[in-house]
Parts: sequence; structure tokens; C-alpha cells
Amino acid sequence: MAAQTVATPADPGTTDSATAESATANPGSVDLGPAAALSCRECGHRVPLGPVFACEECFGPLEIAYDFSAYDTEELRRRIESGPANIWRYAPLLPVPADVADKPNLNPGWTKLVQADNLARELGVTGGLYVKDDSGNPTHSFKDRVVAQALEAARAFGFTTLSCSSTGNLAGAVGAAAARAGFRSCVFIPHDLEQGKVVMAAVYGGDLVGIEGNYDDVNRFCSELIGDPAGEGWGFVNVNLRPYYAEGSKTLAYEICEQLGWRLPDQIVVPIASGSQLTKIDKGLQELIELGLVEDRPYKIFGAQARGCSPVSTAFKDGHDVVRPQKPDTIAKSLAIGNPADGPYVLDIARRTGGAVEDVDDAEIVDAIRLLARTEGIFAETAGGVTVGVTRKLIESGLLDPAKTTVVLNTGDGLKTLDAVAGTGLTATIRPSLDSFHEAGLA
Amino acid sequence: MAAQTVATPADPGTTDSATAESATANPGSVDLGPAAALSCRECGHRVPLGPVFACEECFGPLEIAYDFSAYDTEELRRRIESGPANIWRYAPLLPVPADVADKPNLNPGWTKLVQADNLARELGVTGGLYVKDDSGNPTHSFKDRVVAQALEAARAFGFTTLSCSSTGNLAGAVGAAAARAGFRSCVFIPHDLEQGKVVMAAVYGGDLVGIEGNYDDVNRFCSELIGDPAGEGWGFVNVNLRPYYAEGSKTLAYEICEQLGWRLPDQIVVPIASGSQLTKIDKGLQELIELGLVEDRPYKIFGAQARGCSPVSTAFKDGHDVVRPQKPDTIAKSLAIGNPADGPYVLDIARRTGGAVEDVDDAEIVDAIRLLARTEGIFAETAGGVTVGVTRKLIESGLLDPAKTTVVLNTGDGLKTLDAVAGTGLTATIRPSLDSFHEAGLA
Repeated sequence: MAAQTVATPADPGTTDSATAESATANPGSVDLGPAAALSCRECGHRVPLGPVFACEECFGPLEIAYDFSAYDTEELRRRIESGPANIWRYAPLLPVPADVADKPNLNPGWTKLVQADNLARELGVTGGLYVKDDSGNPTHSFKDRVVAQALEAARAFGFTTLSCSSTGNLAGAVGAAAARAGFRSCVFIPHDLEQGKVVMAAVYGGDLVGIEGNYDDVNRFCSELIGDPAGEGWGFVNVNLRPYYAEGSKTLAYEICEQLGWRLPDQIVVPIASGSQLTKIDKGLQELIELGLVEDRPYKIFGAQARGCSPVSTAFKDGHDVVRPQKPDTIAKSLAIGNPADGPYVLDIARRTGGAVEDVDDAEIVDAIRLLARTEGIFAETAGGVTVGVTRKLIESGLLDPAKTTVVLNTGDGLKTLDAVAGTGLTATIRPSLDSFHEAGLA
Repeated sequence: MAAQTVATPADPGTTDSATAESATANPGSVDLGPAAALSCRECGHRVPLGPVFACEECFGPLEIAYDFSAYDTEELRRRIESGPANIWRYAPLLPVPADVADKPNLNPGWTKLVQADNLARELGVTGGLYVKDDSGNPTHSFKDRVVAQALEAARAFGFTTLSCSSTGNLAGAVGAAAARAGFRSCVFIPHDLEQGKVVMAAVYGGDLVGIEGNYDDVNRFCSELIGDPAGEGWGFVNVNLRPYYAEGSKTLAYEICEQLGWRLPDQIVVPIASGSQLTKIDKGLQELIELGLVEDRPYKIFGAQARGCSPVSTAFKDGHDVVRPQKPDTIAKSLAIGNPADGPYVLDIARRTGGAVEDVDDAEIVDAIRLLARTEGIFAETAGGVTVGVTRKLIESGLLDPAKTTVVLNTGDGLKTLDAVAGTGLTATIRPSLDSFHEAGLA
């Protein structure tokens, strides 16, 4: 789970656009900075860096193994602090080449860590409450972080098309990143998606293909396409580029700690869709500890789900190690993954750190969106309503300690899920006169 | 127009929340940092800092006069560079107290200056093209910059309610800023505004009052309310706080120059609504020159309007000094001010710097929104379509030199004006099969 250090140094060979084609044929020679290999999370089997995601031995998920052995803690800290105001300040800890900041990329990250004193008062938190507000990313969701990593891997492997299946945030993030980087994009969505979401995904000018079927059909088709000659040269950000893509979530952990003054928070509340984000935040925190960038002390990670899609929360409460799939039915569509791939790892982390997994229903999600907006002026996506609502619930149940420093993630933007708060409206309607103003009791 | 230096030092008295009430009675004693007085742009008459906006002598507009006399250039530059990643890095140049960064505020600004190489290729710009992307602000428009200034002035004057009339971006910016700062907000809008816009403004929980009438009726009512006892303690950000509010646009000029490595751009393309933003960008550039922070060399400022509301552009082309009001009819609603207060000043600046004012029609606006999204992955509001469209037109007509460094402003977010590109849709609809994929010619 934690940072893996290897004895062999990272391959010093560099990849530029002229050699990118050959890199596809010989993926071991790519330069992805400190990334040394892919390693199976289940059996530890290692393979060279390449566009693969499942272990050839046991079909377990592959993740990046790094070589951080050459780093001096204080030199690394200075390098980060003098880096750009985006995720590339952490390039030494990510699977990207050292000159990544010079390449065309949306440069997400370094979003605000808002000291949420008003919300803290409402929730009774006395130990310091912060909202990590990822609506400040270029396409207004945390997906820009992970897509930025996938894009650099795609570049290194000589891919020229960026692709994904999506029903929302990811489509926009892929379309925008591909446009900036000069890649072709081809995004697959269910054909009957709401018009607003289609517009948000289509405006970047890539191919946007509607599939006659539901989201599962879209995913099945994408898997077929990856195995077909037609899919050659295509990087599916969350399939064949998944090991690289997933690492983007580590930057949330890095930023939170650096913004707290190189300090671990006591408690973090993270939304769960596939569960990948939560596991990578834990990985990022562990790396900071091992590298000596933060003091090693206990932290608790809490997972947040919507009641209408709460397979991990259910397993946590039932004391199970496996996650039983659910059919999603919730307004928190960006979290609506009924069979979360990283569910078991999430359960492990929540239990190991002394955290928990909790869920809130749709009405509680809407209440929490309004609470965050009214107290801090942050208009969150439904996923942000889930984390804020779960935070409130965890305090009430005593699982989250209000006397400790707590960070709550908002991973998206309310403008993308306006329907959730559609009931919000005018306080009053008056005639344009002072009399009418006074009659309405507004003074 | 340029920074005004006065001999008397700024009043050293400080204002905290305990003394804010008395500050209202004696506005000259407020601490707004380097702001020394209000000065009439027409006749130069000076009055102490207070919640007033029109000259008592000639009814001309009041603006802030500063005392920058104590600044050492290199020390100031270091102070700015070591400041926070938001507009408060420029606190020494703004009408705010020195400790402004410690107060609850949305902390907007320090948005990305995107090196737009793909767009440059499409437009034939060889001298460097940049998009200043203000969709990265907390409520995703440049209005957060100006509201943040108005909020600090409101705090200094002891106001407890933040108010405005609005049909869009400003309502959200005021609602969010007031929520964060613990102010009451009361925003007035036409009662028949689209539901989506009502939700965006209402979600922050302040009072949102629909006025039976059009936008002019709303404005007229607000002017009445300011003069009534019921409006006491109310800060209308763009009326009685307008001199402070308007200064927020200077930060666009500061950021652009600092992000270019403390260098003036050769050409800037700025949207025109009231014209205030353009005049304050010029003021900001002049201040940087006078303070020695940038080398003094010529720059040109270009104004951009929508054809359906182009009173300034029309006056520019006709060689007039006065602006004849128009009845707006354009999709660029955030620029739809038919009688722009700062129109004459805009004409003066465009002519003095060798710039121009141009306009584009609705179809050209939509084309330009798509062009920016497709080339740079930036989804702009209609106002961004106006500046990009006008830039293209100015290059074609030879008024803008493609061999020179050019900065184009995007002041808002496409998610707020989805209707403009509603025609954007799927490239293809296919069955979930490789055969269907190949038939559609997508490989």
C-alpha cells in the first residue's frame, strides 16, 4: 500500500516526441521520472512500465513502484516549495518525466484548502476544519488530476488518442486535456445522457460517441475495443492507463499536508466511487511519512458514500471484507459505482487507520450542499454533499473526533449538478417599491 | 487615470470589528491600506474615504487615490512574490488593510495565464498568445475579484449586509463572498430570471429577492433603497461601494504582468460591459510602470463587445467621444449594458494607446467559444467568446499585430451559459459492437 522503494535506479533514457512511437514497442525504456516498474498489489509480481493494468500472474491490479532512494528530505522539500502552483510541484513523486511542467497540459491542482470556521461552528468542530475544494480545477472536478497523469503516460507510450467511458466529470476532463495537449479524444457515453452533460463533454471538439445501451454496455464495449486492432494507439485513461491515472489522487494528500504546513491532518473524509481515490490518498500520506516530509503520527481515513449506492459502507458496518455489488439509485451520480474495484482496500484502510465508512441519503446530501454553500460560499457537487453530510453524521455518532484537525474533500462543482438543489429559489417577490420591500419584511 | 500619489501619509488608525461601527460615522478614519482618499475623475475634488461614489461638486465618478510614496521597488516586488497565491499578494496596491489575507474572504485571483499555442497557430499569432482564464475563480468569474474588494470596504465601513442588483455572475459572487465572511446578503434580480440562474444565486442562502419588473426597474429600486433608512448598513457592491469594487479589476493587470515575468504585454483584449474593467486594467498597468515594477514601453488596449450591445464599438468606429445608449439583444448577457458608464473613458484609452474597439455577432461568439475549447480545453462563457472572436477579427483587419505578445481575457465560465452552445452534440450514435464502431468510421 505504501511507497515501494527499489534498489535499481529508474531507467535514465528519455522519451521525446520523436522516440515516442518506438517506446510503445519497448515500454520498459520510457521515462516516467521516479516510476520504476509496475507491481501487482496482490502478489507483488513486477513488470516494466507499460500500458497494462492487470497482473499476468494473478490478475490483481498493477500499481506504480517508485525509486525515491536518491532523495534528500530537505532538498526535496525545497524543490517542491519552489515548484509551480499546480500538481507538477510534486513531479519528483509522480510517474511523469522531470520536465512535465513544460509540456502542454491543463496543469490542475494546488486548489484551495479552505479553513472552514463557519462550518466548524455549525458542526461543533473545535480542532480545525478544512475543505479541500477541488472545484477550482480547470474543468472543476478532481478528475483533472488523474487525467493529467494518464495524459503524460499516453505521451510516453506514444499514444495519440485519449479515450474513456464516462457519464459526467471524466468526459469533460478527458476532452479538455486532449484539446490542450493536441491529442485526439474519443469519449464513449450512454446515448441517452441529459443534454447538458452532452454539451459539457462535446464542447472540446473531440469525438463524443453515444452507445445504445446503459453504462455497463459502454464499459463492455470499451474493453472490447482495447483488445481490437482499432484500439491500437488509444489510451483509455481509466483502463489501460489506470495505474498511472490513479496516482493523480496522491496529489490531494500531498497538497493537504503541505497546505497544513507539512503536517498530517488527524482525520480525512473522502468520497468513495471506485475507492481508488481513498487508497491513493493513503498511499500519498505514507510516502510523505517515509520520505520524512511530515512527522509520522496516527491519522484516520473516513469513507463517504451515498445511501443509494453504499456497497462499501454496508460491508464496513456488517464487518465484511468483501463488497457485495449494489444497483445504484442516488442523486450522487459521480459516486454511483455499484461494484467498486477498490472496495476491499478501502475497508482495509478505514479499519487499519481507525476510520469508518458511512453513508447519507439524498435528502441529507442536498441539506449538506446547502450547509456548505451557506457557511463557506462553496457550491459543491453532490459528491461534496456526501462528504459534508457524512462528516456531520460521523460527529453525531462519535466516530469522528470534533477536537481534532479534520479535512473534508469536495471533489466537484455544484454547477454540474444543479438539479440536486433545483428547489432553491427566491426568498420573496416584490414590486419595485420601498413599501413592497417593507411589507415583505426584508429590512 | 494613473496612480495618484499624495503628500500626506495614509491615516495610521486601524479598524477592527469593535470600532467598525464608529467608522461609519467617521469614514475618514478607516484603514484601507494605501488608499488615501476618494478623488473625482472629472474635477479632481477629493473627499475622505467613505461609502460614496459620485463627486459632490460635479457628480463625476469617484475613484481611489493612493499613497504609494513609501514603497521601494525591489522590496515591493519581493513582498508581492512572497505573498499568497491570490489577489492579496497585491494588498500593498489595493484599498484593503495590510492584514486582509487573514480575514474570511473567498481569496480569488492568481488564475492561470495559459500559453495558448494551439489557438495562436489557428489565429496566426507568432508573437505569443495568452489567455487569462478567470473561470478559475471561486465562483468562476472575474466578479469574485471586485466583490472581494467591496467586501473589505464594507467591513471597514461597518456594514453588515452585502447587496447588489444582478442578472447573473455578480449575484453568485456576492452570495458566496457574504457567506464566507459572515455577512448577510440580499441580492435583487428580475423576478422572471431563468431557474438555473436563480438556483446559482440562491444556493448560498442569502436573501434573493425577485422584483416585478425588468433589470432597469431593479436598479431603480436599489437606488431608492440606498437613500432610505431601510438601506442603512447596506453595502451595494456596485453602487455605494463602487470606487472600492472597481479597483479589483486592477489585479488582472498586475497578475498578467507578473505572470509574464514582470513584463507588459504588447496588446490586451478586454471585454466591455460598463467599461470599468478596461479602465482599471489600464490604471493597473500605469501603476506598475510608475512603481518601476515593469519597464515603461507602449502597450495597446483593445475593447471587445457583442454586436447586439455595442455602443462603445459603434462610437469608436464613428469617431465619437460620447456613447449613444443601445437596447441590448445578444447572447452575451454578462456584457449586455446598453448605457456603459465608463464608455467615454474606454474610448479615450483605446485611442490613446493605439488600440481599438470591435464587436462580433452571436454566431461569431459561439464559433469563438468552440474554437477556444477545441484548441486549449478552456470552456468560456459567452464573454470569452466575445474576446476571442474580436481578437480573430482584429488580426484579420490588421488592427492587432500577430507578431506581438497578446493577452486575451476570459472572464467567465461556459457552465453558466450552456445554452449558447446547446447545439453541440454527439459525433455519432452506435450499437455497443466493434462492427457498429467501424461502420461509423470512428477508427
